[in-house]
Amino acid sequence: MSFRFEVIARDPRSAARVGRLYTPHGAIDTPVFMPVGTAGTVKAMTPELLEELDAQLLLANTYHLFLRPGHETVRALGGLHRFMSWPRALLTDSGGFQVFSMNSIRQVSEDGVRFASHLDGSPQFLSPEKAVEVQVALGADIIMALDECLEYPAGREKARQSMELTLRWAQRCRKAFSTNADAWQGQRFSPAVSRAKKHGASAPEATPSQALFGIVQGGTYADLRHECAERLVAMDFPGYAIGGLAVGEPPALSYEMTEASVAALPADKPRYLMGVGYPLDLIGYVRRGVDMMDCVLPTRNARNGYLFTWSGVLHIRNAGHATDPRPIDARCACSVCRRYSRAYLRHLFNAGEMSAATLATHHNLYFYLDLMRRLRAALREGTLAQLAVELTAAQQSEPAR
Amino acid sequence: MSFRFEVIARDPRSAARVGRLYTPHGAIDTPVFMPVGTAGTVKAMTPELLEELDAQLLLANTYHLFLRPGHETVRALGGLHRFMSWPRALLTDSGGFQVFSMNSIRQVSEDGVRFASHLDGSPQFLSPEKAVEVQVALGADIIMALDECLEYPAGREKARQSMELTLRWAQRCRKAFSTNADAWQGQRFSPAVSRAKKHGASAPEATPSQALFGIVQGGTYADLRHECAERLVAMDFPGYAIGGLAVGEPPALSYEMTEASVAALPADKPRYLMGVGYPLDLIGYVRRGVDMMDCVLPTRNARNGYLFTWSGVLHIRNAGHATDPRPIDARCACSVCRRYSRAYLRHLFNAGEMSAATLATHHNLYFYLDLMRRLRAALREGTLAQLAVELTAAQQSEPAR
Repeated sequence: MSFRFEVIARDPRSAARVGRLYTPHGAIDTPVFMPVGTAGTVKAMTPELLEELDAQLLLANTYHLFLRPGHETVRALGGLHRFMSWPRALLTDSGGFQVFSMNSIRQVSEDGVRFASHLDGSPQFLSPEKAVEVQVALGADIIMALDECLEYPAGREKARQSMELTLRWAQRCRKAFSTNADAWQGQRFSPAVSRAKKHGASAPEATPSQALFGIVQGGTYADLRHECAERLVAMDFPGYAIGGLAVGEPPALSYEMTEASVAALPADKPRYLMGVGYPLDLIGYVRRGVDMMDCVLPTRNARNGYLFTWSGVLHIRNAGHATDPRPIDARCACSVCRRYSRAYLRHLFNAGEMSAATLATHHNLYFYLDLMRRLRAALREGTLAQLAVELTAAQQSEPAR
Repeated sequence: MSFRFEVIARDPRSAARVGRLYTPHGAIDTPVFMPVGTAGTVKAMTPELLEELDAQLLLANTYHLFLRPGHETVRALGGLHRFMSWPRALLTDSGGFQVFSMNSIRQVSEDGVRFASHLDGSPQFLSPEKAVEVQVALGADIIMALDECLEYPAGREKARQSMELTLRWAQRCRKAFSTNADAWQGQRFSPAVSRAKKHGASAPEATPSQALFGIVQGGTYADLRHECAERLVAMDFPGYAIGGLAVGEPPALSYEMTEASVAALPADKPRYLMGVGYPLDLIGYVRRGVDMMDCVLPTRNARNGYLFTWSGVLHIRNAGHATDPRPIDARCACSVCRRYSRAYLRHLFNAGEMSAATLATHHNLYFYLDLMRRLRAALREGTLAQLAVELTAAQQSEPAR
């Protein structure tokens, strides 16, 4: 068996749990936040820096890699791990979210979705079978079924129809994948020259094959979410994602939909909430039983000079930082905060230097991964509520500038 | 004494020599190539990566730092070493070259040079005294006298007048500096959190004060170059630069001017040829007695996808690299060549990812610093001519693509 999940500890006061996800490319402590490596690289970072940050699992976007450099190119070069020289675990999404969010011209049919490439306008087609084929070629440890991503708001009937399509697509993905799960058997990427070896070990029994997750849809209708989850569970996936949230709906509704979905998901399988969120959101979803999350927020905001700290967001471009010798966050132990001043970082942003993005991204990702470490520790010690209160207070007290 | 130079070995067949330059922020093996950190950062790199590359001496541009963030800001933040968190040696140029090359509207007078900032058009003035004031505020270990940079070609009379101005400015710089040489006495930057400690040590007697170099001008007239050098030597600087070359003149003329300048410079002082060059140029100048060089070539070309290798320049954007699993250069031991394929690097360039620039710059700087290491070894072993032949052959045999 190549993929396994175990729950290690539970929070008595919420649905939160600490777990461990075993994959062919290492074990992952959950709840986990996945940095987003859109095109086979986390923007402004290098795999070396991500190892230094001790990221255990990255997400890469099937849509982007499918269009460029193409999944067959990646397959020919030994799969995505080898292509990007990343010896740890990878997850690819199905491509669906980008097809629906990046392309105004698209045609959804029973068969799949037609769209025009955002790179050159060329006509493209993604079906459940194609999404699986592409993701098998990429070879990530965890791959996703193709789902239809509904816009918000959407009426109940539309949400039901979309959910039904997603369920039929999930079944087709499962079928297409059944003969391909072991495409990478025996080909774990583990470069001689990788500093990964000293870090987290893979389970002894883990051998390279991929795990396909189903995705719960159902719009903003709790009963549809619940039903969708139940019917996916009947198909028996090794893990389940909750999709179609964080698309503009009020936060209370996102939480409600998450609860409705989780209620129908098995306790012994990992749950992945796609595309969230802000620091406080992470705690909120973990308390609702979520084990995995991903978001471009820490990386994208870093490139715009928005830095996460334990006393709120800091806008490093502000003139007030021009002569400030303090680190971004005195309470942060990251190598950027240990070495560089706000004044220097502001200067790098002002001068348009790439290193500004690199150092800011490094800090923000450290903040997110550190938050997840603290969150797991608090969960084990039963102090999760306290951490939430502490972070809430911190996020509400805006820092000096 | 804060600054000292010793010649360790000489090439019996040329003017080349191996030496050691002691500065308040560490000793430097010469001949040395200085990566260019224009605005207080080497573009696409971080100080951590430069330490990993074992760069011992960086150049920063006074012109850029004067305009942004301003030398008083840097002084208030503890000087340039602390500002950019670089515990090793720094050299600043005088700002003159950028004033002359980046500003079409400028007015040179006996007093100094008026120009408009390239950032906002604001009127600015740089005099010998101001150049020293700014460089003292920045606090680099080695600083440069203000010189007039002549365009090529220039007539003999114009070259003589310009040389005379440069000599008068050199004297004024010397005078302005005489009371400021110890402005940073006792303030060596050495952060607790620096991995630099394990690297090259500073001389025990080195205490933080700066060294001011004079600059040889004289256009493309060997007798003027010789005379300028002699008259600078009479002023007794701790080191001498050769300026105004690599501005469009034929290579043979650059070599001739270097020889004419070096002939009049003392054997026991370091010689710095400003703004060169390609790999073969470096050997050529070292054989003519040059100890220090700087150039934007390895960094700027990296960002454009031009990679230096031991078998010529490789254009990584070329389609031919799309599926090439080989490293940039199989003979290169840098961490980029040990980890990444040409296919991946090309993909990063194609996708417009910043990490493309970071990895390419890392490789190119490694190539240059590695070349200098080999060059110093060859010099000690008396095989410099062989290295030149090897590199010439390599540079002439263009690689596959």
